[in-house]
Amino acid sequence: MSISLGKLAVQFGCELRGDPDTEVDQVGTLQSAGKGCIAFLANPSYRKMLAQTQATAVILEESVVEDCPTAALITPEPYRVYAHVAALLHPEPPLVPGVHESASIGADCEIPKSCEIAPGVVLGDAVVLGERVCIGALCVLGRGTVLGDDTRLMAGVTLYSGVQIGQRCLLHSGSVVGADGFGIAKESTGAWTKVPQLGGVRIGDDVEIGANTTIDRGTIEDTVIANGVKLDNQIQVGHNVAIGEHTAIAGQVGISGSAQIGARCMLGGQAGVAGHVTIADDVVVMGRTMVTHSIKKPGVYAGGGVPMDEAANWRKNAVRFGQLDDMARRLRRVEKAVLKPASDDES
Amino acid sequence: MSISLGKLAVQFGCELRGDPDTEVDQVGTLQSAGKGCIAFLANPSYRKMLAQTQATAVILEESVVEDCPTAALITPEPYRVYAHVAALLHPEPPLVPGVHESASIGADCEIPKSCEIAPGVVLGDAVVLGERVCIGALCVLGRGTVLGDDTRLMAGVTLYSGVQIGQRCLLHSGSVVGADGFGIAKESTGAWTKVPQLGGVRIGDDVEIGANTTIDRGTIEDTVIANGVKLDNQIQVGHNVAIGEHTAIAGQVGISGSAQIGARCMLGGQAGVAGHVTIADDVVVMGRTMVTHSIKKPGVYAGGGVPMDEAANWRKNAVRFGQLDDMARRLRRVEKAVLKPASDDES
Amino acid sequence: MSISLGKLAVQFGCELRGDPDTEVDQVGTLQSAGKGCIAFLANPSYRKMLAQTQATAVILEESVVEDCPTAALITPEPYRVYAHVAALLHPEPPLVPGVHESASIGADCEIPKSCEIAPGVVLGDAVVLGERVCIGALCVLGRGTVLGDDTRLMAGVTLYSGVQIGQRCLLHSGSVVGADGFGIAKESTGAWTKVPQLGGVRIGDDVEIGANTTIDRGTIEDTVIANGVKLDNQIQVGHNVAIGEHTAIAGQVGISGSAQIGARCMLGGQAGVAGHVTIADDVVVMGRTMVTHSIKKPGVYAGGGVPMDEAANWRKNAVRFGQLDDMARRLRRVEKAVLKPASDDES
Repeated sequence: MSISLGKLAVQFGCELRGDPDTEVDQVGTLQSAGKGCIAFLANPSYRKMLAQTQATAVILEESVVEDCPTAALITPEPYRVYAHVAALLHPEPPLVPGVHESASIGADCEIPKSCEIAPGVVLGDAVVLGERVCIGALCVLGRGTVLGDDTRLMAGVTLYSGVQIGQRCLLHSGSVVGADGFGIAKESTGAWTKVPQLGGVRIGDDVEIGANTTIDRGTIEDTVIANGVKLDNQIQVGHNVAIGEHTAIAGQVGISGSAQIGARCMLGGQAGVAGHVTIADDVVVMGRTMVTHSIKKPGVYAGGGVPMDEAANWRKNAVRFGQLDDMARRLRRVEKAVLKPASDDES
Repeated sequence: MSISLGKLAVQFGCELRGDPDTEVDQVGTLQSAGKGCIAFLANPSYRKMLAQTQATAVILEESVVEDCPTAALITPEPYRVYAHVAALLHPEPPLVPGVHESASIGADCEIPKSCEIAPGVVLGDAVVLGERVCIGALCVLGRGTVLGDDTRLMAGVTLYSGVQIGQRCLLHSGSVVGADGFGIAKESTGAWTKVPQLGGVRIGDDVEIGANTTIDRGTIEDTVIANGVKLDNQIQVGHNVAIGEHTAIAGQVGISGSAQIGARCMLGGQAGVAGHVTIADDVVVMGRTMVTHSIKKPGVYAGGGVPMDEAANWRKNAVRFGQLDDMARRLRRVEKAVLKPASDDES
Repeated sequence: MSISLGKLAVQFGCELRGDPDTEVDQVGTLQSAGKGCIAFLANPSYRKMLAQTQATAVILEESVVEDCPTAALITPEPYRVYAHVAALLHPEPPLVPGVHESASIGADCEIPKSCEIAPGVVLGDAVVLGERVCIGALCVLGRGTVLGDDTRLMAGVTLYSGVQIGQRCLLHSGSVVGADGFGIAKESTGAWTKVPQLGGVRIGDDVEIGANTTIDRGTIEDTVIANGVKLDNQIQVGHNVAIGEHTAIAGQVGISGSAQIGARCMLGGQAGVAGHVTIADDVVVMGRTMVTHSIKKPGVYAGGGVPMDEAANWRKNAVRFGQLDDMARRLRRVEKAVLKPASDDES
């Protein structure tokens, strides 16, 4: 489809510089965009690419508009506006309703006619699907799973029994929802007895779950993912975890059992959250941080790693890390000898 | 099913406070449990929930029994006893023996009549299953794989050829056992030549393997997982690794090739074990620790990260990490000037 | 098959010590190899096993040949030569051309007669396969995917639409190529709007991708994996990433969106690369390193963790990490008091 810059400006509240009748029909990057393409500039480090762009129009902030050789949609939020424009120009392919003949459907399932069930899908008994649900090839839905309207599962998603998912969710391939949490109790022999994992998983509306992400079922009650949560790939969510509305979590984060994460939080890639910890609303946790204790107030938190360096330097400093407590004590002793009155209250 | 507190007390060696004829029929949490529910209290941080519980009975330690308003099963190991009670009250659903018509079965397979083979399963040639093996939907078992009695594969497990699994194991969805290890040899051109991965994977009895965990086949001999090992989700086990009996490993741990891990070890989440390292029996490795060299004696080991802090503080301290060796040398110089005789033997 | 040591020596440019007519027919480890086996010694820590080996021949460096009780193929690169010898003695099983009757094939696919399509495979429309492509059981190939000659997908690989893969690639089970990148834009309400992921993934020749590794599609243009790249298991490659030729990446590494990694790099296990970072050619990043900023020249880089220690020691030192900036300032103050002239230019 094709749309005029004037209509885009009105629809997304942008100031337009250029001819409102100019049409665009696809998105492009600043470097690659050609005639009919609309690009965006959100990350200032790419500003230098603006001058050479062949795009028909660029979505950008007012502060950079003077560098822009083309028509411009000016907005304080170019990335957000770009997201909407891209969705408008490149809509999802429509569903192809119907149940593929190779799908295996359990007893007592509710599958509206508007749903698409791709080849090789396996539904257990009593699965309930909303309108326009799309189940990709080779997905498995355990007994009694419930999916809301317009939810899509890409190929190869596995839902255990006892999983409920809301409306307009998107689950990517290889994600596993509802596997047993890691609950084991030690016997005097050293062997482990499995703790039955009897809860389920309850996922709200508008949730996206990345490829190969795993969300374990609760031990007794449910693991809960609230509305609007966005999970990247290869995230591990332990049993009994609760994640609040609109929290976004980047790839390879691990969340241990019974952790409670607030609303509108952001967790950077490869971060870890310890078991039974609580994180307040509106907390930002930087990538690779180990959240070892509860965070009670909003803010930006970091930790878990030390900066990259040439390996030889890192190694020298890393050895000193193991001497830090000793160094601190020695520093204190020197201070006492040299600066007696000033530092008496330090330890 | 339903069982009396008196029977539970006898069966699990607990002291009973309350009427032995009172019956319970399901488990619950302290907060949510109602009539007929039995709850437990193992983590002292949840003790404050005891007073309000509506459970019919609680499994707990003697030290907290005075706070308990209900019947109590008193034991020094409430979590372990809870595990057994929960398994008793909530048994696994029974197998539905038979091979689904959509399964694809290779030549010369041995499949006892007691086995359940779910829809879409693909067995290669010469697969050998024990009694009452359950293969979930869309599992793939490579040529010649062998599974012991009562082993269960949840939906979507992939076993390459050359994998042997013992009795009573449980493998969760998305786990991959027997993929090639990461063996590559550099050519003078900079290109890599693949080292054929010719070994298999040998897994003992009573092993549990979490969702999306991967265990690579050996290069020449087998990768070995001993009896009773418990692996959480998204763990990577490299080629030629050996893991000893009853060792438990939490989510997202990575174990590099040829590492040897002892019996009854515990590795916390996101830990990493370097290649060719040996870890003794009864070692505890805390979460996120980098095991870069062998551990020769039992104990608790940590390292790999630094504590979480507000990001601004962390950043200031992280910069100083890169100056640590310099700081140590400067401290030494100051000490020499100030405290000459006392510190001559330090460096 | 069986081959003489003389032929191996000629083919791989080794010096032979022993009878050139001696035949070997399989590989083995130094400890387990028996008659007819050829072993190798590349890691000096295994040298002590040489004296007891029952192998018929060993591939090794000249420096250890005097410890070798058997015939020897002497080369400066024993691991590389071993890789070729193992491939020669243990060739891949041949393809079984044909499309299994349970496979679901879309419209307008091109599938040469030389291809093997295993049970349960699902191909979307317009899939194009080269000669001798092997698609393992239960793989899903999205609409329009293109695979070059001799590429193999093990069981359970998922390719989204818009994925192109070159020749002689090997993808392991559970790998997912082409899922949406993690692109979300914040609304004033706190909710996230999805940024459509419209690019594809372009993978060169001779690439190996490990089990459960995920490679996201580009936002607008393609994510690009160059020829000869080797990826281990459980790696996450974000959208718009480019990885240069012959770069090898170990397990559980995470590469954030738009990172550009050069040719012939090596990244150790559990490393992380921040978004939009550039890494030069020929860079080695040690395991667990957080690459938070661009690396402009070849070299070995480390960082991200601190050394393992007994937990009590680590904890004491970790507490001091949070005091590092304070310690540095205090050290400076003491220096000023004690060593005035020498350190005036330090801070």
